[in-house]
Amino acid sequence: MALRIIATGGTFDKHYDEIKGKLTFSASHLPEVLARTRITAAHALEELPLLDSLDMQDIDRGRVLASCVNAAEEAIVIIHGTDTMQETVAVLGAAGLPKAIVVTGAMIPYKVANSDALFNLGYACGAAQLLPLGVYVAMNGTVFDWNKVQKDRVAGVFKAI
Amino acid sequence: MALRIIATGGTFDKHYDEIKGKLTFSASHLPEVLARTRITAAHALEELPLLDSLDMQDIDRGRVLASCVNAAEEAIVIIHGTDTMQETVAVLGAAGLPKAIVVTGAMIPYKVANSDALFNLGYACGAAQLLPLGVYVAMNGTVFDWNKVQKDRVAGVFKAI
Amino acid sequence: MALRIIATGGTFDKHYDEIKGKLTFSASHLPEVLARTRITAAHALEELPLLDSLDMQDIDRGRVLASCVNAAEEAIVIIHGTDTMQETVAVLGAAGLPKAIVVTGAMIPYKVANSDALFNLGYACGAAQLLPLGVYVAMNGTVFDWNKVQKDRVAGVFKAI
Amino acid sequence: MALRIIATGGTFDKHYDEIKGKLTFSASHLPEVLARTRITAAHALEELPLLDSLDMQDIDRGRVLASCVNAAEEAIVIIHGTDTMQETVAVLGAAGLPKAIVVTGAMIPYKVANSDALFNLGYACGAAQLLPLGVYVAMNGTVFDWNKVQKDRVAGVFKAI
Repeated sequence: MALRIIATGGTFDKHYDEIKGKLTFSASHLPEVLARTRITAAHALEELPLLDSLDMQDIDRGRVLASCVNAAEEAIVIIHGTDTMQETVAVLGAAGLPKAIVVTGAMIPYKVANSDALFNLGYACGAAQLLPLGVYVAMNGTVFDWNKVQKDRVAGVFKAI
Repeated sequence: MALRIIATGGTFDKHYDEIKGKLTFSASHLPEVLARTRITAAHALEELPLLDSLDMQDIDRGRVLASCVNAAEEAIVIIHGTDTMQETVAVLGAAGLPKAIVVTGAMIPYKVANSDALFNLGYACGAAQLLPLGVYVAMNGTVFDWNKVQKDRVAGVFKAI
Repeated sequence: MALRIIATGGTFDKHYDEIKGKLTFSASHLPEVLARTRITAAHALEELPLLDSLDMQDIDRGRVLASCVNAAEEAIVIIHGTDTMQETVAVLGAAGLPKAIVVTGAMIPYKVANSDALFNLGYACGAAQLLPLGVYVAMNGTVFDWNKVQKDRVAGVFKAI
Repeated sequence: MALRIIATGGTFDKHYDEIKGKLTFSASHLPEVLARTRITAAHALEELPLLDSLDMQDIDRGRVLASCVNAAEEAIVIIHGTDTMQETVAVLGAAGLPKAIVVTGAMIPYKVANSDALFNLGYACGAAQLLPLGVYVAMNGTVFDWNKVQKDRVAGVFKAI
């Protein structure tokens, strides 16, 4: 099933800037990541401004929603920071779009050793193709309904509520 | 949903033996891989003898089938070499077990740069939890019915038949 | 020739803390790195408190100097942050110890993709074993005398002055 | 000091061919590796045919010697397979060229996890710039004279003889 993958930044896509000596954003790693997956299912990659999700404002969430509304695909994966994933899925869930929208991210950047980014992306792609219409968070090898999930910031995992 | 993950070897789990100077099998990388996924869904890892799938005999496929029969879980992911995945899913498919069994693998070993292993594992875990009962191959970001798939050895991708 | 390798932190040894979402210090990566080098030359690893070199105070540089004074080995490699390498080699150079002391570091952490850490460590180990007694900075595949080097912060490379 | 780096293949430069399912040679990884080192010392990269060193014939060693003879640089690093490093340094050593020639390689390919390639390259670059004229093997964080070294194939390390 055709997929739309929307990059919004987050830990998944952070880049180490060796001049500044910190993690920031540069070009998205998603084109490289998607080539690595060897995915043959039809898919489109859409890069929105890459943000730390703590910096996301209403206007940014509105832009994510607009991308979902405008998508030709019914299966959508959104790469998002983990800290405010809950706020974004609330916006998407309230919209009640006739699509399967799966939001994922990473606890460790794709470019850092021991990253969960590639696993999470694979999991989210499978989930978006197979889930009924709705909005979900996919993290920790688990699918959560958008309004029944929160991040446990101490343990660093998502839990059902 | 609880998962059983069965390691049978294949390219996914190959290890570079620096004394022999070639890719072979040592201990499975799956324990390390699963820790990296940060999976919180209930799961069991079962390690069968690790084999190059070109070396798999009927007895080896019988062992994989027995593991599926005996599994308490209804969602099963099997890590398998890509060259004879088709033969193994034929054995599993003919058995008609009341479980969702998803076979995956990798074109590049987990321990080699640019590997698709982690993506494929994530995709297969999501698929095994969400698919109806049946036997499937999950490769290239696509779910294939067990009796409608083959590996295109020239292109290095799986295709529907 | 026997080597002493002194870890002081710096970008080389930074660790991504997935709970805090930032690069910080945990246990040094040097034990793992040294195993990876397959070094058979006699060597001792000494771990000082791991610091961002921007946080290094006189007392910290004094501790590095004391380690050099007390070292049984005549060839010493110091892993150090790049931002204040110059200040530390000034302290070491002024001491005039009868040892070959080579200070190195990394522009990208060992655990981040595309890191120069392992190359720099190899280069510094070779240099410490082969240089005449003195204090040096080894970065960018180049040996610099301690009092004739500075970091070009815009270009992110070390240059002779 | 200006360096010439000569790629001849060996484990260091092996590439996983996902269609054939084995380690072979494709384009050399050295251009990517050298960019990663951030080396600013003047250097030239020369790519000879990439070979498993077990496949090296007299004519291949002659080609390596010719490259050393013709090199404008006095410091030369040769990337070579470990199995017949000894035979190649015998040819180079007998020639008595007025250059510092350091032969290195890797026990694990650059593109495979836990590779020693980058460390060895760094070590060899430092050694080639600092050693007196002569021919050397640099492996395991140790410099060996060309006629006083052999590979211990059981332990996978180089030893003085």
